[in-house]
Amino acid sequence: MPSEDTLITLPKTEIPRSWYNVLPDLPEPLEPYLTPSGEAVKPEQLAAIFPASLIEQELSPRRLFDIPVPVAEALARYRPTPLQRAAGLEKALGVRSRIYFKNESVSPSGSHKSNTALAQAHFNREAGIRRLATETGAGQWGTALSIAGCAFGLEIRVYMVRVSLEQKPYRKTVMNLMGAEVLSSPSDLTAAGRRAKAENPRTLGSLGLAISEAVEDAASRSDTNYSLGSVLNHVILHQTVIGQEIKKQLSLAGVSPDYLIACHGGGSNFGGMAAPFVPEIKDGARIALIAAEPESCPTLTRGRFAHDHGDVAGLTPLLPMYTLGKDFQPPAIHAGGLRYHGASPIVSSLVKSGMVKPLAVGGADLFRYAALFARTEFIIPAPESAHALAAACLKALELEQAGTPGTIVFVLSGHGLLDLSAFESFIDTY
Amino acid sequence: MPSEDTLITLPKTEIPRSWYNVLPDLPEPLEPYLTPSGEAVKPEQLAAIFPASLIEQELSPRRLFDIPVPVAEALARYRPTPLQRAAGLEKALGVRSRIYFKNESVSPSGSHKSNTALAQAHFNREAGIRRLATETGAGQWGTALSIAGCAFGLEIRVYMVRVSLEQKPYRKTVMNLMGAEVLSSPSDLTAAGRRAKAENPRTLGSLGLAISEAVEDAASRSDTNYSLGSVLNHVILHQTVIGQEIKKQLSLAGVSPDYLIACHGGGSNFGGMAAPFVPEIKDGARIALIAAEPESCPTLTRGRFAHDHGDVAGLTPLLPMYTLGKDFQPPAIHAGGLRYHGASPIVSSLVKSGMVKPLAVGGADLFRYAALFARTEFIIPAPESAHALAAACLKALELEQAGTPGTIVFVLSGHGLLDLSAFESFIDTY
Repeated sequence: MPSEDTLITLPKTEIPRSWYNVLPDLPEPLEPYLTPSGEAVKPEQLAAIFPASLIEQELSPRRLFDIPVPVAEALARYRPTPLQRAAGLEKALGVRSRIYFKNESVSPSGSHKSNTALAQAHFNREAGIRRLATETGAGQWGTALSIAGCAFGLEIRVYMVRVSLEQKPYRKTVMNLMGAEVLSSPSDLTAAGRRAKAENPRTLGSLGLAISEAVEDAASRSDTNYSLGSVLNHVILHQTVIGQEIKKQLSLAGVSPDYLIACHGGGSNFGGMAAPFVPEIKDGARIALIAAEPESCPTLTRGRFAHDHGDVAGLTPLLPMYTLGKDFQPPAIHAGGLRYHGASPIVSSLVKSGMVKPLAVGGADLFRYAALFARTEFIIPAPESAHALAAACLKALELEQAGTPGTIVFVLSGHGLLDLSAFESFIDTY
Repeated sequence: MPSEDTLITLPKTEIPRSWYNVLPDLPEPLEPYLTPSGEAVKPEQLAAIFPASLIEQELSPRRLFDIPVPVAEALARYRPTPLQRAAGLEKALGVRSRIYFKNESVSPSGSHKSNTALAQAHFNREAGIRRLATETGAGQWGTALSIAGCAFGLEIRVYMVRVSLEQKPYRKTVMNLMGAEVLSSPSDLTAAGRRAKAENPRTLGSLGLAISEAVEDAASRSDTNYSLGSVLNHVILHQTVIGQEIKKQLSLAGVSPDYLIACHGGGSNFGGMAAPFVPEIKDGARIALIAAEPESCPTLTRGRFAHDHGDVAGLTPLLPMYTLGKDFQPPAIHAGGLRYHGASPIVSSLVKSGMVKPLAVGGADLFRYAALFARTEFIIPAPESAHALAAACLKALELEQAGTPGTIVFVLSGHGLLDLSAFESFIDTY
């Protein structure tokens, strides 16, 4: 078992005190969100589903936002999260590159999603909201928002993508234990859900469709707002605690990273890692940012850059992003958090400008490296996180072959203890 | 969400450097283990299944054993574990008593079992052993030993109690991911297993029977030893890191405990908490030690004190302990780790001498307080740990009614993320 000196911990005093907004530092300014008629969305048009504080964070050019005390206190329950050297994994791979991982699995929900769930619950509560509606794929986001609902006294309703709910019934158990209501999406409770079921009674559901249901739910009730776990600017803003801490921890260890890798579904975990490094990369730092996405839902590597809706029903504004088209139905892969047709506008902009390289990884590599990681680092990665892990392993092996070992950091965005069905069918082959 | 000042952490330098052996400090000397013919067991009679180092730890009157460096390094990956004030739970219960919990769920296996698994793997490896056989009930012990096998390079075979395996198939997935072989017990691979199946093909299995299978497996192969996750003195010795840390943490917080509570199955978690407090209680400290066991397997509250086998087939020595009889078949409760007919000789001795009070808790209380804990402290307790939690809540309510609030510490021996089926049937009623 690797010794404790592979753990780079920070004292509680080093938890970031502000969120970093990358918007003013993007290589190219972000194109505006559009209404279906092609006009730029005005802040007040978002007020039916978001509180003013989050709308400001979504659109502001301000670089820093103070983290409010109640959110800071909640984050201090589990942050700073450890940065760990994966010495056992390096040895098992037989590489000279150094591999570090930022361990976001230590949060109460078991993933990075708590970072923004706690913030969003706070700001909605401050705005007098009593209830939040949201969607979830794999269940990480729904779990995080359920816990944040307990912490800040909000009712939570979760529309969970049907195929994910069937694959991972215990995710529902967890959310129920935390007091949240969980519905299989498409449901009968919304027009979007009923329409989808009428078109195809056996639909697997998708994140885009579940978003439609949650947005419709929130827009139809004045005590209810909508809460999104990824994609949007304010979500990435809250997730920048990840990248800020990584910077401090690498500096404490005296290490310069060559590669920073995170998985990419909607972009919150990747964006939260990458954003704080953008200014120094613009200033010439040689750090490669790699977004690992599934081969079966290749938004960044195969999608086109366009204004598209974030949901199937077209209830959200048109966002400037890479997209496979809002009606794209990804196959029933287990990494439910990565089954999304679109991508964060911020990450899309970084990909478009060439600062971020997307990489599609898939199938057997995922399981091979997940099992290797479990046996050397004693953590079972979430299927989503296994994409970043696999990309890190493949990069380390590539560097080894080229004779140019380097320093690789990836984000372990969550553990896989509630996603074990994803691993079952592979077990016998290893 | 409770603020960080409810967390009492210790620096890595405060991890205990030695294990504390309570044997010389017991109020009454431990009676010897006996062979079936009634003679005291000699150390060499245990050598077929245990290394000499562990046999010495089992029988020695020495108070302190240094923790070897490789074990200390492995423990430093997750120790010291936090002691946390359950301020949210106190508020929800409406009590003035202070409730703390020692959070052993942060280990790689998710429970306290790693504390002894890592030690046992090390000592067996040092003795040239290549392979360990063991049993597991709920799967916490099997998971911990599988991880320890990865850490110290040992093959692991786990005989898992059939009913637990059916209730918690993902426990097997985890152990398989960690490279261990998992068999449903009773199996066809041992005489004990075949006999049990012949007698009752539909047997649920039991810990006592799975122990018989693992002992038989180990005794029949020279490269294999047996590893036990509870009951025995050397196991409790390794678990005393729990109680030693609690003492330091309470002292750091300036708090004197009135009640120390842990659940009791075989006794390792309870004994590990309680043993380090025995000397001061003998010296007059007013601390009540409470062992929480399930109503449906009431070894300490309803069993008789006698010499009895630790397993169904009678392969182990006769241990001086409270027992329901080696053939007692507990019902299929979900707290599989507590489905054991016997009890640790050390804990049994402490109960017999009156220093430990056993308390049986059951059914609805378990779920009610588990859900309350999840919603206030954001951790889902293992069903076993929920017994300690429920006992702590009941005690706090009792003290409130009596107008005599106090300080209660319980051990959260593990999280319940791999035991969610235990909670499913209760969900709708809360």
